[in-house]
Amino acid sequence: MKEKINKNKIAIVLIQLLKDAKKDAFREVIKELMPYDIAEQYNELPVKHRPLFLEYLDVPQLTSLLRHLTRDEQLQVLRILKPVRSVELLELMKNDDLAFLLSGLKDSQIEKLITQMKHEESVIVRRILAYPEKSAGRKMSDRYVWIDKKYTIEQAIEKLKHFSELAEYLNYLYVIDEHKKLVGVVSYRDLLLADSKTTVDEIMTKNIVSVDVYTKQQEVAKLIARHDFVSIPVVIEDNTLVGIITVDDVLDIIMREADEDIEMLLASGKAIDFKTKPLVAAYRRLPWLILLLFIGLVSGSIIAKFEATLEAVVALAFFMPMIAGMTGNTGTQSLAVVVRGLVTEDLNTKQAIKLIFRELIVGIIIGITCAIIISVIAYVWQGSLVLGLVVGSSLLITLIIGTIAGTVIPLILHKFKVDPAVASGPLITTINDILSLLIYFGIATMFISRLM
Amino acid sequence: MKEKINKNKIAIVLIQLLKDAKKDAFREVIKELMPYDIAEQYNELPVKHRPLFLEYLDVPQLTSLLRHLTRDEQLQVLRILKPVRSVELLELMKNDDLAFLLSGLKDSQIEKLITQMKHEESVIVRRILAYPEKSAGRKMSDRYVWIDKKYTIEQAIEKLKHFSELAEYLNYLYVIDEHKKLVGVVSYRDLLLADSKTTVDEIMTKNIVSVDVYTKQQEVAKLIARHDFVSIPVVIEDNTLVGIITVDDVLDIIMREADEDIEMLLASGKAIDFKTKPLVAAYRRLPWLILLLFIGLVSGSIIAKFEATLEAVVALAFFMPMIAGMTGNTGTQSLAVVVRGLVTEDLNTKQAIKLIFRELIVGIIIGITCAIIISVIAYVWQGSLVLGLVVGSSLLITLIIGTIAGTVIPLILHKFKVDPAVASGPLITTINDILSLLIYFGIATMFISRLM
Repeated sequence: MKEKINKNKIAIVLIQLLKDAKKDAFREVIKELMPYDIAEQYNELPVKHRPLFLEYLDVPQLTSLLRHLTRDEQLQVLRILKPVRSVELLELMKNDDLAFLLSGLKDSQIEKLITQMKHEESVIVRRILAYPEKSAGRKMSDRYVWIDKKYTIEQAIEKLKHFSELAEYLNYLYVIDEHKKLVGVVSYRDLLLADSKTTVDEIMTKNIVSVDVYTKQQEVAKLIARHDFVSIPVVIEDNTLVGIITVDDVLDIIMREADEDIEMLLASGKAIDFKTKPLVAAYRRLPWLILLLFIGLVSGSIIAKFEATLEAVVALAFFMPMIAGMTGNTGTQSLAVVVRGLVTEDLNTKQAIKLIFRELIVGIIIGITCAIIISVIAYVWQGSLVLGLVVGSSLLITLIIGTIAGTVIPLILHKFKVDPAVASGPLITTINDILSLLIYFGIATMFISRLM
Repeated sequence: MKEKINKNKIAIVLIQLLKDAKKDAFREVIKELMPYDIAEQYNELPVKHRPLFLEYLDVPQLTSLLRHLTRDEQLQVLRILKPVRSVELLELMKNDDLAFLLSGLKDSQIEKLITQMKHEESVIVRRILAYPEKSAGRKMSDRYVWIDKKYTIEQAIEKLKHFSELAEYLNYLYVIDEHKKLVGVVSYRDLLLADSKTTVDEIMTKNIVSVDVYTKQQEVAKLIARHDFVSIPVVIEDNTLVGIITVDDVLDIIMREADEDIEMLLASGKAIDFKTKPLVAAYRRLPWLILLLFIGLVSGSIIAKFEATLEAVVALAFFMPMIAGMTGNTGTQSLAVVVRGLVTEDLNTKQAIKLIFRELIVGIIIGITCAIIISVIAYVWQGSLVLGLVVGSSLLITLIIGTIAGTVIPLILHKFKVDPAVASGPLITTINDILSLLIYFGIATMFISRLM
């Protein structure tokens, strides 16, 4: 509450200072804010004040502002800024952030921006953009400090002082040998505690965990979370150090992956947030909904095939939503367990078979329980024992099949390196809908003479 | 692949060493492994070898082993260990980990363990257990080092050397004044770069972000992610420092929250992973499924109310799964946007109204699009223009209502401090199922004479 009032107050002060063009006073206020809060103030600002707001910030402040904006907002900032300052800004950005920003642009626009940059910067950016999306190479930063293993602690601290700007958010120095291969790490704490005359290779940690540039970002996140690291070095094949990935990037990766899992599990459409425009949000949601529309029609056409059965016993329709809904739900329950389980654990074939077997037992237990309940209810409600048994046995079979389908399909996708979360709503629901209606009306048709 | 072979090889070596009771050689191998890998080896080990495995580890190794086990596995370790070692182990655990472990036990068991511990340890543990679940107080650690703001850099480093074990995973020293109030932080990097004769309050960062012991863990995670912190200090009311929360804990919080969101959004049952026993998994999933069973029956009873309409025009049944499915899905799409959006952003009333208005427009756009498609299909398929219009207009209305329901309900829950993810499958689906069937059959009944 207190924080909110403060934010509004600050906003009012900032707007007044912009109106009066009081640059120095404006900069005094900004200096007291965290980068995230500056970004928030910028986003809340009336559009007409934004150009001056950006003009009053220095380039390092602009850099940290960009870090907290969405890609669309970043591009807007670049459009407002004068070209010279844009390039300056791009050069100062962490190169993984820069690659993220550029990957949203057309190739011709990327070229235009890159050619304006300093040669060594542009080489780095091109190299990062050459790595596949969602690989460690795309997310790594070159803002780290390396030292030679023969350095004394004193020399190491000396080098750190030289590159202190680079090392702002870090906690380690990376140690390389004469062939530039990564051979160890030294934490700042190690440096503080060590005698200044010892050499780095005496105190460094040699048992280092590193990742390859082509490692998936999700795997990197898994490693950092497991080992409670603050950062992890990225190497190419021959163990040459080329970058690092820090835990704050991993937080972003984990949140993004969770959002994507939910998007895919619920078929909710990619990348819609509170600021997405209505037309864009509708456009992103429609493909799924139209797909589901046709899936619904497939179910409908199965019912149409059994029109004679349904006409004879209309009461069969009463249990349709329940059977289809339950089968779909047990499938997504299993799917959720598999998808989220794979986020933190790896499965070998033996463990996968064990999991499928467990889900089979789970399916049988919930199938029997629910079948008994619904048989009794259907008998009491509709007064027909045969109807009760038809509904109950259908539910038993469909629940077992639905549970197994929800487990096996994502495991197969995972085996073939497809993200199992795509086996979402649409796929599992279609299969389970169609199977459940076929089984239900199939059994009902078999017993049609006794049902009438 | 390489890593997997290595793991299996190491497992074989370890089992052989345990069989031969070669303690020293065993410890040599263990020394080369990361704590997570030791935990993995322990879990893969045949049960009969586990007691000796644990006996060969020293207490610090046991402590880090426990960090990577589930609560059930932790309790199993405590049962295997001799009582004296258990208590030693509990005393050495980070106290937030300890509180997590104990919160799974019965009160009498907690008492028994706590009374065996040293007095000062037991006081701390009791205090942590007194904070509400999911509060910052429950997750904070006392493994930090504080310094007085009047210290010179030299004195600060001296103190760090004394408490170097405590400070193993940290990157900051916390600065307090003469009343023990938190007044600043100093990073290890600041210490390395500063002149050893300056005092701490000259170089410390004064603009610190801290959280209260009662702050929700999810809020703490939000702050750390926003500001890219590695740790955040926890204070009580009068700004007295009582603990810290580190980014590795935040990774756990974020993953747990994402899992819980998915569990609730998909009604998939709490806390089921790959190792959950079949009976337990079935028991956790059944409540949701039985609830859905009754919800399905409510839908069924609505259909039963319109039995005459359905008997007159059986073709109406063909479009039932599609309409109910689509309405449910557009609702969960909106729900997903709201639930995940609230993870990273806060909404005030103005923004909430703006969001509802956007979703209304989205609902109208997707409603009109889908209604046109289905009207044409229904007309072509069933050869009845009236049926096409009935199905189309029903879908238009239900999609708009479904979209709004999926937005408004979680926002209301959030307003009343209920986690909006509980407005999951069951609630939104029930409401949308019932509404969609009522609207569909209501419209159909109105036009029944023209449909026949």
